[in-house]
Amino acid sequence: MSHAFSSLAEFRALLAAAPDRDAAAHAAAVARNGQLTKPPGALGRLEELAVWFAGWQGTDRPRCERPQVLVFAGNHGVVAQGVSAFPAEVTVQMVANFRHGGAAINQLSKAFGATMSVHALELERPTADFTVAPAMEEAEVVAALRCGWEAVDAGADVLVTGEMGIGNTTPAAAIAAALFGGEPAGWVGRGTGVDDAGLARKADAVARGLALHAARLGDPLQVLRCLGGRELAAMAGAIARARVERVPVVLDGFICTASAAVLEKAAAGSLDHCVAGHVSAEGGHGRLLAALGKAPLLDLGLRLGEGSGAALALGVVKGALACHSGMATFAEAGVSGA
Amino acid sequence: MSHAFSSLAEFRALLAAAPDRDAAAHAAAVARNGQLTKPPGALGRLEELAVWFAGWQGTDRPRCERPQVLVFAGNHGVVAQGVSAFPAEVTVQMVANFRHGGAAINQLSKAFGATMSVHALELERPTADFTVAPAMEEAEVVAALRCGWEAVDAGADVLVTGEMGIGNTTPAAAIAAALFGGEPAGWVGRGTGVDDAGLARKADAVARGLALHAARLGDPLQVLRCLGGRELAAMAGAIARARVERVPVVLDGFICTASAAVLEKAAAGSLDHCVAGHVSAEGGHGRLLAALGKAPLLDLGLRLGEGSGAALALGVVKGALACHSGMATFAEAGVSGA
Repeated sequence: MSHAFSSLAEFRALLAAAPDRDAAAHAAAVARNGQLTKPPGALGRLEELAVWFAGWQGTDRPRCERPQVLVFAGNHGVVAQGVSAFPAEVTVQMVANFRHGGAAINQLSKAFGATMSVHALELERPTADFTVAPAMEEAEVVAALRCGWEAVDAGADVLVTGEMGIGNTTPAAAIAAALFGGEPAGWVGRGTGVDDAGLARKADAVARGLALHAARLGDPLQVLRCLGGRELAAMAGAIARARVERVPVVLDGFICTASAAVLEKAAAGSLDHCVAGHVSAEGGHGRLLAALGKAPLLDLGLRLGEGSGAALALGVVKGALACHSGMATFAEAGVSGA
Repeated sequence: MSHAFSSLAEFRALLAAAPDRDAAAHAAAVARNGQLTKPPGALGRLEELAVWFAGWQGTDRPRCERPQVLVFAGNHGVVAQGVSAFPAEVTVQMVANFRHGGAAINQLSKAFGATMSVHALELERPTADFTVAPAMEEAEVVAALRCGWEAVDAGADVLVTGEMGIGNTTPAAAIAAALFGGEPAGWVGRGTGVDDAGLARKADAVARGLALHAARLGDPLQVLRCLGGRELAAMAGAIARARVERVPVVLDGFICTASAAVLEKAAAGSLDHCVAGHVSAEGGHGRLLAALGKAPLLDLGLRLGEGSGAALALGVVKGALACHSGMATFAEAGVSGA
């Protein structure tokens, strides 16, 4: 099989060349929205969402009939620093749970009619502990990006990317700190439930990682390589592919958003096809969304990962698109305007 | 047909005698929630919602498979005071639109698998203008309460009540002001889009209604009679029936919540089976929800009515119940705990 890219430089070039949304479809959807049987603006954010989807899907009647949920799993050398409340073997156990249909993301995918697949990335071979070495070699990060890139179904009308990886809020916090600056303590959170000592160990690990790799962190794709993880890179690869194919993406929580942020910093506009599904309870997520200028659809205190918050937001997307694409116009319904 | 009640006094007695939730089912759901394959609390508000549904549905595995959406329509004498941006004939035109499947609530009901019915309450005979007389006689408000009461399908697993009625944010504001106090200007909003002069006329109409009926407003059911409208009373009747049948209700926006508030004031605990689906963009809604101690599931700037915000929130309910009732436990999945 020939691959779309075989180096970080080639990946960056593909991303930078991604096409814009379909301006004509967007304009047609704005016009249609103005004629639907409701007072102007009465559906609030749903109207904005529908016309935004129209631009990316290239039709004035956007749909959410073939949503795709991709869950990527990876393991992390940095767990040696005592950064997680759960043991690393839970990653492989949860992958089995995904495959047997027992996890939250299975139920949410089913509830909203999404296809879901899980992609385990070399769980038996964790990334290097970023406090002592770069998390990945270039070949490793490229392979992980490719895993995500190739997992996207170009026929999907919406994409959700989720993750599972014990310890992975620590690489996410390191990426956020490297890309946006600020103290490590402002980016780390309790993840699956670490205590105060664990939280301090996370902030310390991030600080040491930033110091060790400082010379490389001017390049966002090197940030991903040095501080990230395979499932984070895979999410970035999938989101990049969706950008190139103009498939709209619903972003999940802190880890997903940190992965996505790498793309935006590597090529401005790379997340124009992404809407924030929710803001999670994990410390840095709200701050990260604000830095990216993304307003979340939901704020329900979720902090599970797996793509769960984004999959839940598919309900809002389905509602918005059903209204926009299915409602009658004032003329069709014979209703008097304001 | 013999009716459940034939006076406001009988209605009040039925409401006051409503049974509590099923404490054993609630406790069983709390226990189940603690065993599901996720860190404790990681599904945030979804966990709380699922165990709450369990108590009202009387099962540790609650469902949202038969949601019912009821839309009630009425016309209002107070439109003579210039309180709406749309002419009164739009109520009947929109009822036709509901019946032909062209409105937002039709699309949302379909998207979340809800049955939907529309009940027009004597549209050709508006209520009296409450600035000059009580909006309804006792027989009229009882008939409207009964319309709602009898419309509830006792086999529904979740209920949504919505409304259509040009001018009906004004009665809703009057009810809120009568029940909770405060200046009329703090309860009125732009509804379907009145300008500043219209907004001032709304506040003035509310103030005159409160003054005219002051002697009767100590009784919440008289508040409904003097200041309300038929579709507001019908929503109250349906929500009361759901309370008696222990069917959980998702509240919609300002008008729905004002109708519901009458019940809570008439008999404390009457809204224990209600969750706020969303907070709307209409001025007084957030304030009204706060007064009732209800935290909304969604905040997306909707201000359409019809039950649209609550129907959209069925997506969140479906997600919450799918996770709770469908996920594997740690023991079933062989996953290590924290």
